[in-house]
Parts: sequence; C-alpha cells; structure tokens
Amino acid sequence: LTTIEVRALSGVCRVHVGERLARLASLVPAGLTVYVTDAHVARLYGASFGPGRTIVLEPGEASKSLAGLERVYDGLLDAGADRDTFVVAVGGGVVCDVAGFAASTYLRGLPFGFVPTTLLAQVDAGIGGKNGIDFRGVKNLVGVFQQPRFVLCDPAVLGTLPAGETANGLAEMVKTAAIGSPALFDEIERAPEKALGLDPDLIGRAVVESLRIKAAVVEADEREAGARRVLNLGHTLGHAVESVAGVAHGEAVGAGLVFAARLSVRRGLLPAGDAERITTLVRRLGLPAEVGVPAPARPALVDAVRRDKKRVGDAVRFVFLEAIGRPLVREIPLAELESAIHDLC
Amino acid sequence: LTTIEVRALSGVCRVHVGERLARLASLVPAGLTVYVTDAHVARLYGASFGPGRTIVLEPGEASKSLAGLERVYDGLLDAGADRDTFVVAVGGGVVCDVAGFAASTYLRGLPFGFVPTTLLAQVDAGIGGKNGIDFRGVKNLVGVFQQPRFVLCDPAVLGTLPAGETANGLAEMVKTAAIGSPALFDEIERAPEKALGLDPDLIGRAVVESLRIKAAVVEADEREAGARRVLNLGHTLGHAVESVAGVAHGEAVGAGLVFAARLSVRRGLLPAGDAERITTLVRRLGLPAEVGVPAPARPALVDAVRRDKKRVGDAVRFVFLEAIGRPLVREIPLAELESAIHDLC
Repeated sequence: LTTIEVRALSGVCRVHVGERLARLASLVPAGLTVYVTDAHVARLYGASFGPGRTIVLEPGEASKSLAGLERVYDGLLDAGADRDTFVVAVGGGVVCDVAGFAASTYLRGLPFGFVPTTLLAQVDAGIGGKNGIDFRGVKNLVGVFQQPRFVLCDPAVLGTLPAGETANGLAEMVKTAAIGSPALFDEIERAPEKALGLDPDLIGRAVVESLRIKAAVVEADEREAGARRVLNLGHTLGHAVESVAGVAHGEAVGAGLVFAARLSVRRGLLPAGDAERITTLVRRLGLPAEVGVPAPARPALVDAVRRDKKRVGDAVRFVFLEAIGRPLVREIPLAELESAIHDLC
Repeated sequence: LTTIEVRALSGVCRVHVGERLARLASLVPAGLTVYVTDAHVARLYGASFGPGRTIVLEPGEASKSLAGLERVYDGLLDAGADRDTFVVAVGGGVVCDVAGFAASTYLRGLPFGFVPTTLLAQVDAGIGGKNGIDFRGVKNLVGVFQQPRFVLCDPAVLGTLPAGETANGLAEMVKTAAIGSPALFDEIERAPEKALGLDPDLIGRAVVESLRIKAAVVEADEREAGARRVLNLGHTLGHAVESVAGVAHGEAVGAGLVFAARLSVRRGLLPAGDAERITTLVRRLGLPAEVGVPAPARPALVDAVRRDKKRVGDAVRFVFLEAIGRPLVREIPLAELESAIHDLC
C-alpha cells in the first residue's frame, strides 16, 4: 500500500495505491454518500459500495455530456443531497470525469472521491483535478479544476478489464514515462508482454511511478499555466484522432506519441533512434503507431486540432521531446502542424 | 468614481462604481472579447460594446438554465474562443449568473467581467463570485465560486430600468443594510421615495455602501463556510416563494425579510419595534410584506425550503436579527420553520 499526496490549489488529494475496494467505506466521511457508476461496474462491484444511493450511467463516452451531467444532477436531487453529502465515482475515466464535474458544481461544490476501475483512469483521469464533459464533439471542452479528496486504486479490479482496456492505460503510462522517467520507459520496454498481462509487480511499480510523476507536475501547476502542459505529450493529435475517428483513447495517444516523436526528429530536437524506440514500444503494446484516418478525413483532423484547448491564435502549444524523459513545449504554427499531419501520418 | 477591491480565494475583483459603460473597452484585455447579453439590453446598449462577438440570450429567468448555458457554450465555440478569450456579461442577474458560470467552465475557465445593468445586479449578483443556474425549479442549484476580474457599475443605465426593477434592487439593499449598516437603513428609511426615484446622490452612496458591506463579508468567507451566511437574510423563505409563486426576487426577499424579522421577534431575539421598522420600510418601497402564497400551496413552499442549499439534515441554517445591523445564524428545525410559515405568513 502506497499513499501519494497531491497538494494543489484546489485542494489536497490522497491517492491510495494498492488499497482494496472493500476498504472504501473507511475513506468516506459520515453522512449521506452518493455513488456514481456505470451499468457494467455496478454489476461487477455494486455489492462493495457502502450504504447510500447509487446513480447508474450508461457505459461509454456518450455519458460524458450535458445529458450525462443532467442525469447526475437529477440523481443528487432525488437523493436529497445537501452540502454534507459525499460523492464517490466508481468507474473509468468517463464516470470519474462527469461525476467529478457534477460534484464540483452541485450546490457550488460537494466533496468527492474516486475509485478508478480501469488502468487508464488509475494512472490518468483519476488524478490531476481535471474533470468535465465533451461538447459538440470536442473532448473536455467544459469542466473545472477540482481535486477529489481521495483516489482509491485497487489493482484487483484491473483483472476484470475488457480486452483493449489494458493497452489504453499502458499508452498513457508510456507517455508519462516519456516525459518524466527513462527508468519506467526501460522497464516497460524490457517486458511489454508482462505489462499487457497485468503482471502485478510490474503494474504495481508502474502505477506508483506514473502517479508520482503526474502528481509532481500537477502540484507545480494545477491550472496548466506552464509546466503541466508537458502532460499533453501525444494528446494534440491524439484528441483530434479520438474525435474524428472515434478510436479508443489509448490508440489515439499511441499514434499521437509516435507523431510527436517523429515531428521532434524532423525539427532536429530528438535523435531518430529515440523516436524508433517509442514507435516500437507502442506497436509491441498492440497499439497503432499510425493514425487510422483516411486522406479524405484529414481536413476534419486539422479542424479538430484548431479547436484544441492548447491553441493560441494561429499556433498550437505542442509538446516535443529532446530525449526520452525530457519534454519541451513550443508553439507550432497550425500550417506547419497541418503539413506534418500530411507527411508523417 | 469609487473602486472597491474584493480579494477572495477564487481571485481579485475590482468593482468600479460610477464608471461609464462607454469606458468598458479600457477594462477589457487585448484579444478576442465575447459579450453575453439579452435581447432587451442588446437593443439599449449593444452599440456601446467594443469589438468582438455577442451572444444574445432570451430575456428572463428561463435563460438561467442548462439550455441557456448550452447557448453560451455554442456561442463561444462558434466564436472560436481560446484560453485568452475574455467574456463580458452585460445585463441583469440572469445574464451575469449564466455567463459567469459558462466562462468559469468553458475550457475549464476563461477570464470574465460583469456590467450589471439593474440595481439588483449592481448591488448583488454582480459581486460575490457566486454564479450558476437553476435546475428543476430549484434556484441556483448548480454553479461555482469564481470572481470576475472586474465589475463596472454605471448609474446611467439604471434610468432605463422597467418599473418594478428598482424595487427589486432596493429590497436587496435593505437586506444588506439590515445585516451591516444601521446608517444605510436609516438613510433609505428617511427617504424611500427618493430611493424609488433613483435619486443619484442617495443611490450612489447606497450602492457603494452595499458593495462595501458585501465585499467585506465575501472576502472573509467566499465559500460560505460561516460568516457569509448572513447574506442569506430573508432568502430562505424568499427563494422558496420565488420558486413556488414565481414572483420577482425583490418581492420575495421583501417578504422574506419581514418573515425573518417576525420569527426573530417570536424567538425573543429582536425587539418588536425593529421588526415593525423593517415591515414599514418594505411596504413603503412598494414591496409586499406578506407571502403571496395561498394556503393550498403552502406545502409546496415547505418542500422548496427543504430543498434549500442551507439545509443540514432536518434543520435549516436561518439568519435571524438581534437588531438592525446585527444578524445571527442559528439552525432551526424544519418543523419549527414550517409552523412559523403557517402562523406568520
């Protein structure tokens, strides 16, 4: 059991890694608890929730919307939630994102905690204090920064992940290694099949190391005024691919990482060998190294980049690499990015 | 021209009282500006907005909703807003509340400023950092705390207020006086007809004094953990009446103030003479001192109180008075409040 504390502007969050879901009740304060989950997770783990009310969302990205938000607000209203009510999200990134945003805005802010049930949510969505919803097809367009009181990461729940979900989390883990930990990158590179098989030792160490890196970045700059931007490595193209092609986050981030590495080589920042290592590792994790967007859909991809939160006028803040473990944020003109998408994808 | 600075957790807000709408451009930073207003205000003052895009809402409380919020999000998306975009709300409380909430959540927070165009918004909704929307008939159920960068209060715009709007603002001003300034209470009491006639000297002093009191309370406790609760004087019953009877905020607050004063007398906290002064002043401002809710609708009123944000289990935090200028927050059981509603309304 490892506890990592994240001390950010919007609050202090304690992340318990290796804790059991059955111990959830000990983390929740007295008073009414409202659980937010989806139908899949409710079927698997609903019996482990403590006393309280449960709001069940439809599984899938469609719940990360104004409609999903409305459903949580309705559930809180039906439950008679007051300012002492505690909200617990149990599920993947969608559930954590929408429940965190609903809790942060209901009665102008209820306290909340997360139990991420996917590898991706454990290493990414669960911590950092970002929450929110998609709007008109734009990922995370609406939201706030607000830390949960706690995050409980139980490795046992990962065993029930559907195929493909593991790779989603590993893509985000490789990204975190690429910005902050050559040692973690080496470790996954030495045994990608162990990572895919959710080897408890490897995954345990990798989750803790990923969380430490992310926590340090978030503590330094929760609101993404500067340092935090490195966490967007692979995400400028990744989010666009996710919107346009509707692929899983991990696949989009895998392709986005490879794109960022190749663009870094093209600009003379990164040795070609490092980009090759990244490409190979992405492929060995079963993720596509190329964007699966056919040429006729490329303009839509460029449009999606243009709507990105990281855009500043006619440029985008883009995360390059100088080495594995050394990111570099620079503005890149939209026109250059557009031609790179045509040449490198 | 008086500038009052509000230094709160969520940011620093500069309130410029006596400033001209025509000077708005000097307060807005370089970059894209998006104005949010309603059709009435756009017709009167749209020509005074600086360069930028304008989002026009339907006038009225119905815009303070998820649908109104969606409209602002759509407008920001159409305008190509990025993180350097500045949002200016020009209008009454509804416009400021919904635009402030939209700005606080779009891209996880854009900077924004307010130009309140009603007396009520100048002394109340414009400052304090609360913003949000109604949900399923519950006032302000959803929102966040976020200070605007500036508030511009131009006395000239008040001259175009529709009949009734002045009394709305005066009710809130009397409330503020009752919690923090016997001198302001005396001044309005000496010349209620001058206040109703928007006498520039009286209104100028009264707006500044109201803002000073509210700013001090908000600085001490932006998130309403304690001291700020006094600002809810008259609002527990007031909000319920507003929801159930659909009357104007000022009328509801007027009746709520009288109710709070009478309940304070009943509990032996306030001399009967002070309650009488409050009742008389509310009436002389043309506001109802009694709740206009017929007996069959009383259960709905009690239900609305039960859904109030100030409820804690089976009790409500209620603001009593010990004297004009001396509020006192105590919990009151819902049952006692219910019987008081029957006896005193």
